[in-house]
Amino acid sequence: MRTDQRNRNSLRPVTITPNFLQHPEGSVLIQVGNTKVICNASIEDRVPPFMRGQGKGWITAEYAMLPRATEQRNIRESSKGKVSGRTMEIQRLIGRALRSVVDLDSIGERTVWVDCDVIQADGGTRTASITGAFVAVVLAFESLLRRKVLSKMPITDFLAAISVGVLPDGMEILDLNYEEDSKAHVDMNIVMTGTGEFVEIQGTGEEATFSMKQLNELLQLAEQGIQTIIMKQREVLGDITNRIGESVTAKGESK
Amino acid sequence: MRTDQRNRNSLRPVTITPNFLQHPEGSVLIQVGNTKVICNASIEDRVPPFMRGQGKGWITAEYAMLPRATEQRNIRESSKGKVSGRTMEIQRLIGRALRSVVDLDSIGERTVWVDCDVIQADGGTRTASITGAFVAVVLAFESLLRRKVLSKMPITDFLAAISVGVLPDGMEILDLNYEEDSKAHVDMNIVMTGTGEFVEIQGTGEEATFSMKQLNELLQLAEQGIQTIIMKQREVLGDITNRIGESVTAKGESK
Amino acid sequence: MRTDQRNRNSLRPVTITPNFLQHPEGSVLIQVGNTKVICNASIEDRVPPFMRGQGKGWITAEYAMLPRATEQRNIRESSKGKVSGRTMEIQRLIGRALRSVVDLDSIGERTVWVDCDVIQADGGTRTASITGAFVAVVLAFESLLRRKVLSKMPITDFLAAISVGVLPDGMEILDLNYEEDSKAHVDMNIVMTGTGEFVEIQGTGEEATFSMKQLNELLQLAEQGIQTIIMKQREVLGDITNRIGESVTAKGESK
Amino acid sequence: MRTDQRNRNSLRPVTITPNFLQHPEGSVLIQVGNTKVICNASIEDRVPPFMRGQGKGWITAEYAMLPRATEQRNIRESSKGKVSGRTMEIQRLIGRALRSVVDLDSIGERTVWVDCDVIQADGGTRTASITGAFVAVVLAFESLLRRKVLSKMPITDFLAAISVGVLPDGMEILDLNYEEDSKAHVDMNIVMTGTGEFVEIQGTGEEATFSMKQLNELLQLAEQGIQTIIMKQREVLGDITNRIGESVTAKGESK
Amino acid sequence: MRTDQRNRNSLRPVTITPNFLQHPEGSVLIQVGNTKVICNASIEDRVPPFMRGQGKGWITAEYAMLPRATEQRNIRESSKGKVSGRTMEIQRLIGRALRSVVDLDSIGERTVWVDCDVIQADGGTRTASITGAFVAVVLAFESLLRRKVLSKMPITDFLAAISVGVLPDGMEILDLNYEEDSKAHVDMNIVMTGTGEFVEIQGTGEEATFSMKQLNELLQLAEQGIQTIIMKQREVLGDITNRIGESVTAKGESK
Amino acid sequence: MRTDQRNRNSLRPVTITPNFLQHPEGSVLIQVGNTKVICNASIEDRVPPFMRGQGKGWITAEYAMLPRATEQRNIRESSKGKVSGRTMEIQRLIGRALRSVVDLDSIGERTVWVDCDVIQADGGTRTASITGAFVAVVLAFESLLRRKVLSKMPITDFLAAISVGVLPDGMEILDLNYEEDSKAHVDMNIVMTGTGEFVEIQGTGEEATFSMKQLNELLQLAEQGIQTIIMKQREVLGDITNRIGESVTAKGESK
Repeated sequence: MRTDQRNRNSLRPVTITPNFLQHPEGSVLIQVGNTKVICNASIEDRVPPFMRGQGKGWITAEYAMLPRATEQRNIRESSKGKVSGRTMEIQRLIGRALRSVVDLDSIGERTVWVDCDVIQADGGTRTASITGAFVAVVLAFESLLRRKVLSKMPITDFLAAISVGVLPDGMEILDLNYEEDSKAHVDMNIVMTGTGEFVEIQGTGEEATFSMKQLNELLQLAEQGIQTIIMKQREVLGDITNRIGESVTAKGESK
Repeated sequence: MRTDQRNRNSLRPVTITPNFLQHPEGSVLIQVGNTKVICNASIEDRVPPFMRGQGKGWITAEYAMLPRATEQRNIRESSKGKVSGRTMEIQRLIGRALRSVVDLDSIGERTVWVDCDVIQADGGTRTASITGAFVAVVLAFESLLRRKVLSKMPITDFLAAISVGVLPDGMEILDLNYEEDSKAHVDMNIVMTGTGEFVEIQGTGEEATFSMKQLNELLQLAEQGIQTIIMKQREVLGDITNRIGESVTAKGESK
Repeated sequence: MRTDQRNRNSLRPVTITPNFLQHPEGSVLIQVGNTKVICNASIEDRVPPFMRGQGKGWITAEYAMLPRATEQRNIRESSKGKVSGRTMEIQRLIGRALRSVVDLDSIGERTVWVDCDVIQADGGTRTASITGAFVAVVLAFESLLRRKVLSKMPITDFLAAISVGVLPDGMEILDLNYEEDSKAHVDMNIVMTGTGEFVEIQGTGEEATFSMKQLNELLQLAEQGIQTIIMKQREVLGDITNRIGESVTAKGESK
Repeated sequence: MRTDQRNRNSLRPVTITPNFLQHPEGSVLIQVGNTKVICNASIEDRVPPFMRGQGKGWITAEYAMLPRATEQRNIRESSKGKVSGRTMEIQRLIGRALRSVVDLDSIGERTVWVDCDVIQADGGTRTASITGAFVAVVLAFESLLRRKVLSKMPITDFLAAISVGVLPDGMEILDLNYEEDSKAHVDMNIVMTGTGEFVEIQGTGEEATFSMKQLNELLQLAEQGIQTIIMKQREVLGDITNRIGESVTAKGESK
Repeated sequence: MRTDQRNRNSLRPVTITPNFLQHPEGSVLIQVGNTKVICNASIEDRVPPFMRGQGKGWITAEYAMLPRATEQRNIRESSKGKVSGRTMEIQRLIGRALRSVVDLDSIGERTVWVDCDVIQADGGTRTASITGAFVAVVLAFESLLRRKVLSKMPITDFLAAISVGVLPDGMEILDLNYEEDSKAHVDMNIVMTGTGEFVEIQGTGEEATFSMKQLNELLQLAEQGIQTIIMKQREVLGDITNRIGESVTAKGESK
Repeated sequence: MRTDQRNRNSLRPVTITPNFLQHPEGSVLIQVGNTKVICNASIEDRVPPFMRGQGKGWITAEYAMLPRATEQRNIRESSKGKVSGRTMEIQRLIGRALRSVVDLDSIGERTVWVDCDVIQADGGTRTASITGAFVAVVLAFESLLRRKVLSKMPITDFLAAISVGVLPDGMEILDLNYEEDSKAHVDMNIVMTGTGEFVEIQGTGEEATFSMKQLNELLQLAEQGIQTIIMKQREVLGDITNRIGESVTAKGESK
């Protein structure tokens, strides 16, 4: 039994509120237990310099926490004048994950800016960000479809993420809260698609190691968790769900 | 008539949600029309170096916007590596305003960190921040009272803020939204106490000027608006309202 | 009686030395009591990117102190690698104030850079900067008139600034020196035009408040002080004085 | 067949030159094909502030490239004034990996600074850095043993790293050079111990995904490659090899 | 004949105004032709961390230009957020030069901060800074003598600096103005003491070279110029002149 | 006798390894005693903005040390976020020295980036950098000659540098190692050409001075040392030596 009474393979409650803010093309509030992240997707009608003239688009992500998202107040990165290594690692991960399910060739020279702002943190903020950002990006593209800027949804598959880990007593668990995360010997973040393919595996033993057997156990927990989360995404997206994957052939061919 | 059908002396709807987030000692979501600001107050058990050994406390404020709080996405100040002049001006104003109604001598060597994070902007974000931050600070002190860390509420008076301005046609108006703010010839932010004293007047003509008569008209509009907003603060604070001002004599004397 | 024997409504001696340095288009040394500021105005034949193509000009200001302008040596902002909030606030104020009396439409795509460098500080450095910078800007435009780059003086009115405040004993005073400024309960900076209109009011109670009656008293002191200072500006400018306001109709119409 | 005639499961030649530079406690030049990295380990007799008073040590790593380590010259990070996200990610990885095989409790309040400076890059610089840094750290501890500062080698196991990936034609390969890395659909870095446990798995599909079957194939390639590399480390370390793992019980118990 | 009618071995007029500003312990305005520099010396009663506990003092210098000291306006280094290489080179030179004639052992753990702020530039700003800063430092120590903080003037010798150079036609000249400096093939700055010893020689051919014969000619010009400047320093310092060198034996011995 | 048994006019052993790294157009490892510097020259087919449209080229240099090039580990300048004054001074010196022997008019709008990275330091790193960088630049131009991008070697003369100094006992010495450099009263760096002309003299007394007689002695030591080093350069360059100076007339004329 875990401190919050969950089974080792139980997710915390997941709620996704679409159209959370007024200005962004796509906006979502995602709650995973006590973790709350505002995910906004903004469309800009140009790409960064290194991509100009290729006729294809780009997705980039930024991640931040309110200073008091955590138990102790953190100094703002704007006050420190630089972005921490942890923040950079997370925003690179979010951007990379989203690019794996978007047909960048079909969106023209546009940039999707994804902003994940954690307003309350209780573990799993980076995986909640990916899961929420996916929905925000779909909503942003849907708005381009409605405005006839795009003719086809450029999303090739669903995408969600979850954490798994190994507690000091050796138990493998799904969806670690902050307390569990602090004491875990192994911590792993998995990003998968709706068709069960891996997009990213980041497993790490901090002052510890793990075996192939443990790895397989963890991957299995993650796969089940992600499929459950994707069902939540489908509910929230409703009819839009049907448009996901329509351009999958195009992408397959463009590789 | 104004674009949103208000009279020249009408406020937009004001909603203050107390205890909005879980970790901060005081936390509030304030909405003024479409402007939404999360105001968190954190208590730290020490003061900055320049104040050590004096036995009194300090209040400091930070202000930020989500990149997509606005119609156009803004670059994060953490990415730019520096805080803009506008942000600095606003956070200095918020801190100064709050310090005018807190008896810093009675809170011991503690710092109150006030974080105002604008998640959606439609004009008046600095005045909404002050109004919301006041409630968050009261809630934070209330938690210290409950924990017996303090014995008396160190707040001497209510505090709220509002904007007033002059439209190009010469009409003086209360509580400008973003569209009105963009075209106003004169823009003024007023901070007042529950007893009707001024704490701060910042009036400015951008490429324009204003007369004494206009100034008096604007101050009158602001005073009425602020008294209405303070009634909202009283409702939200409920019983705590009675404790505001109990230490007012102490402060008067300590000056 | 004040520490330097002045009456409550007395200014300190004001001296304005025109053409102080050799290179700038307009250059002034202003002394207000022991406060000394070098004000230089430079003309650049282009505007910042956000204003290009509109056919109008821009005025921007920078403010700094020599490290030992003050009793204690301050660390240079170039060594700290960033400009303080106080500096930003002041330079934004100076630029805004000057823009209110310049017909930006009539100067073409040019930028006026105003540099206010305090070499000795004894209170009132920001208001002395505005008063001196006004003269430097007029001199810079005069040089453009002489070189036939402009055909009309683009200044619509005189402009000067002064501080007023409330001492702990409740006395309202004009033109605070450093010692008075340090202990004042209320500190207010007023910028006005030659025709007696307000351009900027910034009044603030640091850990204190003020009433409408006090406000009115302060505004009256400021108005008298500013009219006296503008007489000094007229003396220094001599014949050029007659050209100020010639384009006032143009500006009135362009609004 | 690969562009450099290797089989899919072949490593490039690995050379490790111990005691490469004169000043560091441990110094190694590692060459993996054309990739060349100088790995230095320095011992400092104190720990960072967040670890003081715990009686245990710390290992931290920094990573950089000479500007012309690559085909195109890169701007120095010191000139840019900030460290890139990629660099931060790599140095966090190197430090974390090394900490997993060092008994930090047994080295007292000391910091091991590991510097990995790539002088020539042809793919796999982060895994070569880990492999070389491990040897440099062992040599640094050996110097502490010789000087009787430590009484037991605090290394619990061997540690090495390698990259694996999937080429566009679907072939899984070991030890990617730069050209292969640029076109690979899946890129994975694996860090393992001498006893075959995982320390870190970082697998990522850039605009692509991978299946469980591919994952297993990649892990198998990596495991074989790492065992071969560890044999190289053993050769270079000679007699010191016998001291690795002597404190393994201590570490197991201290967990 | 030179553009300003000087002979090749003529200095421009040198004026040194002592006690120029009110707050610094030592303050001087130095004018060399049209070059004008404010030199302030401030005494701080502690030394930087790397010198604590040695019982001796330190001298450090900072150098800056007003943005419009030059024909074209320069961007402030505080706005750029960093100090240029040229500025660093100059301030290191000024500090080093002054330290060569101050008996640091006899001033206790004090730092002399020298600030050289160029308000108008016409060539030779770094040498004028050294010449002026020397007088400011003497004045600062004199104030310590008057206040009985020191018992002996800690200055061992006079110190001044001048530039020499080679024009494109091969003529060696003394004290280059800006126009001459811009076209010179060789540029040399010399710092010497009152007894004719060298403190610093910095000679450089920008896209050019120079012979031993030219070097000797340049050194001779410099020596004569510096002796003339030191006579100016003696005049300005009056009676204080007699105290310079009194501690020279102490310093000789402390080496 | 010196600590390493050298005579006062002896150089340490000098070794120059050409074509040290694979990617740069010119690459050299230079060793002077225990000082080791990697010097890379990169050709970029454009010039910095301030030189565009003039049809001539530019040479710029960067200098850095590995953190553990020295006895004590130094913090990386990329971590500190800024380049030190010492580094700036050195890289400005290296660039200036190289430009004096390159006919920039004849290389078209190209930039030569010179990177000097010290991997092991024992005094004289800046002079070793210049000596090694000269060879790297020649090799880079030779590669342009081979590729027919240039038709003539644009190097007008040989170039090398060495340090000289005065020990506390008054002895003048050639080529100071770190220990000697730390205690020297006078430290001088000399850059000369193959024909015996000076390019740069930087002599400085840190808390000391020097006479004309000492200067002449030091210059003589330096001249002999530099001629010996240039013989090493000739050996390494072999046949290429003959092409140095072929464009000397062109440069002489272009001045």
